[in-house]
Amino acid sequence: MDIIELIDKKKSGKKLTQKEWEFFVSGVCNGQIKDYQTSSMLMAMYLKDLEFEETYNLTMAMANSGKVLNLDDIGECLDKHSTGGVSDTTTLVVVPVLASIGVKVAKMSGRSLGHTGGTADKMEVFQGYNTEISTYKFKELIAKNNASIISQSDDFAVADKILYKLRSETGTVDNISLIASSIMSKKIACGAKLLVLDVKYGSGAFMKTEKDAKQLAKIMKDIGARCGIKVCAVISNMNQPLTPYIGNNFEVYSALKVLDGLDNNLSNLSKVLCEEALLLCGKCQTKMQAEMLINDAIKSGKAKQKLIEIVSAQNGSVEYINNPEKLIKENRFIEINSEYDGYLQKFDTAQLGNIAHSLQKIDGKIIRQDDVGIILNKNVGDYIKNGEKIMTVYYNQLDDKDELIEEIKKSFCVGKKPKTAKLVDNILK
Amino acid sequence: MDIIELIDKKKSGKKLTQKEWEFFVSGVCNGQIKDYQTSSMLMAMYLKDLEFEETYNLTMAMANSGKVLNLDDIGECLDKHSTGGVSDTTTLVVVPVLASIGVKVAKMSGRSLGHTGGTADKMEVFQGYNTEISTYKFKELIAKNNASIISQSDDFAVADKILYKLRSETGTVDNISLIASSIMSKKIACGAKLLVLDVKYGSGAFMKTEKDAKQLAKIMKDIGARCGIKVCAVISNMNQPLTPYIGNNFEVYSALKVLDGLDNNLSNLSKVLCEEALLLCGKCQTKMQAEMLINDAIKSGKAKQKLIEIVSAQNGSVEYINNPEKLIKENRFIEINSEYDGYLQKFDTAQLGNIAHSLQKIDGKIIRQDDVGIILNKNVGDYIKNGEKIMTVYYNQLDDKDELIEEIKKSFCVGKKPKTAKLVDNILK
Repeated sequence: MDIIELIDKKKSGKKLTQKEWEFFVSGVCNGQIKDYQTSSMLMAMYLKDLEFEETYNLTMAMANSGKVLNLDDIGECLDKHSTGGVSDTTTLVVVPVLASIGVKVAKMSGRSLGHTGGTADKMEVFQGYNTEISTYKFKELIAKNNASIISQSDDFAVADKILYKLRSETGTVDNISLIASSIMSKKIACGAKLLVLDVKYGSGAFMKTEKDAKQLAKIMKDIGARCGIKVCAVISNMNQPLTPYIGNNFEVYSALKVLDGLDNNLSNLSKVLCEEALLLCGKCQTKMQAEMLINDAIKSGKAKQKLIEIVSAQNGSVEYINNPEKLIKENRFIEINSEYDGYLQKFDTAQLGNIAHSLQKIDGKIIRQDDVGIILNKNVGDYIKNGEKIMTVYYNQLDDKDELIEEIKKSFCVGKKPKTAKLVDNILK
Repeated sequence: MDIIELIDKKKSGKKLTQKEWEFFVSGVCNGQIKDYQTSSMLMAMYLKDLEFEETYNLTMAMANSGKVLNLDDIGECLDKHSTGGVSDTTTLVVVPVLASIGVKVAKMSGRSLGHTGGTADKMEVFQGYNTEISTYKFKELIAKNNASIISQSDDFAVADKILYKLRSETGTVDNISLIASSIMSKKIACGAKLLVLDVKYGSGAFMKTEKDAKQLAKIMKDIGARCGIKVCAVISNMNQPLTPYIGNNFEVYSALKVLDGLDNNLSNLSKVLCEEALLLCGKCQTKMQAEMLINDAIKSGKAKQKLIEIVSAQNGSVEYINNPEKLIKENRFIEINSEYDGYLQKFDTAQLGNIAHSLQKIDGKIIRQDDVGIILNKNVGDYIKNGEKIMTVYYNQLDDKDELIEEIKKSFCVGKKPKTAKLVDNILK
């Protein structure tokens, strides 16, 4: 078996066997396959696509390319994953709510990627919070507090790190089989046997259409089913940021307000995800029962108390949890106003995510600054008058203020036609 | 402009502009585009293919990526190129014949590549022959002797060297647009304004079918027409080696015998190529006139005398030219006999080429040995009796004799059905 033979096979649209996928993944990891050969193979996979059987075999080979965690000794654990959005901060609501109801949540998170935010970065807003504890400690905390949130270490799904880096530099990111294998390989290696997926589509998601999001969700569900993981997938809309708050501090603020009882798109989606989790793990038999438990967890303050436990256990400061308003600091700002009367037609959500990330940059280098971000004053569908404020951008120092304003003006659009927007579209159980 | 954008465009099947191809080629040469990005782009080009306009722009960018020779000051020169075959040694016949008739032939040759032989390697059979003279000396010799044969230096079509190496390791060799741009970029950089192409198809060629060979020939002709090179393409069959002699020494022997008047497939194809060259450069108006000149060049010994001049001018020994039989030395040999009665159905010509190359290897390393090779005793279509000799393999030292015999037995096939074979199929003028 050699890689050129495998590339030839894939480029002709033929199906690779389990052994061939294992050969590919191990060659990628041990360096016997050169990165230029891997990227050629990735493009052949991209353009000729994979059958489900191949996606499954690739995923399993990737999952087994690094450390694999066994959580069986602490009971059935649940994991939650979003395919990535902007101001998509449901994890900070879902994890404490579920843990406070008695669901064991083993949450390994990623860092910010492209325009999307990362839970691991947001958890570090709680000063001192350690996202890099040992897997031993991780399991101990889940056993004790029902939940722990850590960043997934590079020892897991080693092949995925290599392949993802190459894909991001070779135009092979936006392929459903490759996305499914990347996500599921990491999730399988984490060891949770229950998985709630939030599959996003729209201008701020990797999947641009609802159809693609459904297809991705179905493949991930099928992979789970085949390797003994119960998966439920919620399809949700990311044509506008989930909350008006973009930027790590602002997003944590937003999540804390939901735990304080605020009702908005973030609370709605978080509740749907919690409901599905409760049904998946068998804690509830009906949606109504789940809804009651979730509302009670929030109203009673148990969920917020659980977040305090989770954060304290990993040495994070709970100051912001007790005083969310402290997260919105006074800072320099730019107000962006409408130049027309009309309905807000759309946000280029990815663009807003990119701008929020760019606020972290000084002289082209990323310098972590929590007190920068965007606060939106309008939603898609709102009627806006000429001169009315659409958003405020908070910053510390900017390389080029005029350029930033130009970029922001391209991120939304006002028009004459009335417009509506939906949030959750579909739940695949 | 950035490479990911270009890859995205190509992978979606869109057409790249001239500026974009120039950006790609310059990025490949200066290292700003990483090899893993280049190979991803190559696979996208392979699977989405290029329009003619794109192939042309890519070819010109590649041709201009290194040294470009101007031959105008020594008059209109002709070049000849074969797309590569086994025992395909027409250059050693065509160049002296044409030069002896007064055509200026500027021949830059390649080295052996894969299963195919290289003229530069064969010229070095004449001990002392220097294939690496300066382009100044090259032009001087063409002006003086009407011909010089050198190996094309790495300074020409720099992008092609990089792209070809990557293609050979990433499964993107067998694509007509990529092959056409590779060949034509080198030929354009050489500076000849007349070009006779021998486009091969069959089991010993890069193109497997006549249809593909014709398509390749047409693209190369069109590229030539657009940049001011008159091209004529002969389509010829490479389903069996052109002569019964495979291996550098044996192939030179074969060419010398044709210059001595032997009539066979090699002499037939060489004559067709010479005819087309004479019509292309305007030395002759009719095929009959060309045929007469060619036959006279051989019969009179002028062509052989011209080869002596060409070889001597570059310090090669002419001993073999005067005594071709010395090229077939006594050596260890293996005879391969038929195990059935029947017609010789086919040769796996590429496999024969590979075996001839493998005879050069000792302990996996290539050690140049001229006195090894294969001599075929039968042609495709011949009736063979059980036990009759099909070929003899000459060797010095072998890593594994039994393995070699196994490989050779897979390189031909005897069957009950009568079979015919043709040589030259088509001439595109």
